Amino acid sequence: MSSIPTQFTDVTVLAKANTYFDGSVVSHTIILADGTKKTLGLIRPGSYHFGTDAAERMELVAGSCRVTLDGRTDTRDHAAGTHFDVPAKSGFTIEVKAGLVEYICSYIS
Amino acid sequence: MSSIPTQFTDVTVLAKANTYFDGSVVSHTIILADGTKKTLGLIRPGSYHFGTDAAERMELVAGSCRVTLDGRTDTRDHAAGTHFDVPAKSGFTIEVKAGLVEYICSYIS
Repeated sequence: MSSIPTQFTDVTVLAKANTYFDGSVVSHTIILADGTKKTLGLIRPGSYHFGTDAAERMELVAGSCRVTLDGRTDTRDHAAGTHFDVPAKSGFTIEVKAGLVEYICSYIS
Repeated sequence: MSSIPTQFTDVTVLAKANTYFDGSVVSHTIILADGTKKTLGLIRPGSYHFGTDAAERMELVAGSCRVTLDGRTDTRDHAAGTHFDVPAKSGFTIEVKAGLVEYICSYIS
């Protein structure tokens, strides 16, 4: 059974969305009771590179994608219900072939 | 000064997004402490018709659009910081010329 959360309770949600690549990637920021932030986002078909400051965990709520971590040549396919981690001060390229990917991004300190 | 909320506190957010028109319209559902629901969404350029069950208030967080309420011939332009109401058991056509519209949808009982 997927360990991907289905909801977050007692959070603050920022009304202004985060938008990237002309809206092909969008997300909303949530702030948990302990002050940590996550984003709930959606990715349209295409290939996008994101840099990281803190390390990130990307949990897939829906859809599937192919991910290449910076500095690596191996690409990995990920589907809903799985996650991948991205090191700090690094980045990743995420490719969505069709449909929408929905994700939860958490920052790993 | 705009009366559009910038954040919502003490809410539950559903991780699974709502997607319409092949992802041209997407939203996340939030449930407030009193049990009422709102959605935070984004609309890509295009023209979309939505039906309503309960009456709805659409507050624009970003972007601008043109709206025609069902049964009306007059269209109205709306920009960020404003809102429009849609009667219950009715609908509206919303047209986004460029950019993204971000909205908060509240259900008026």
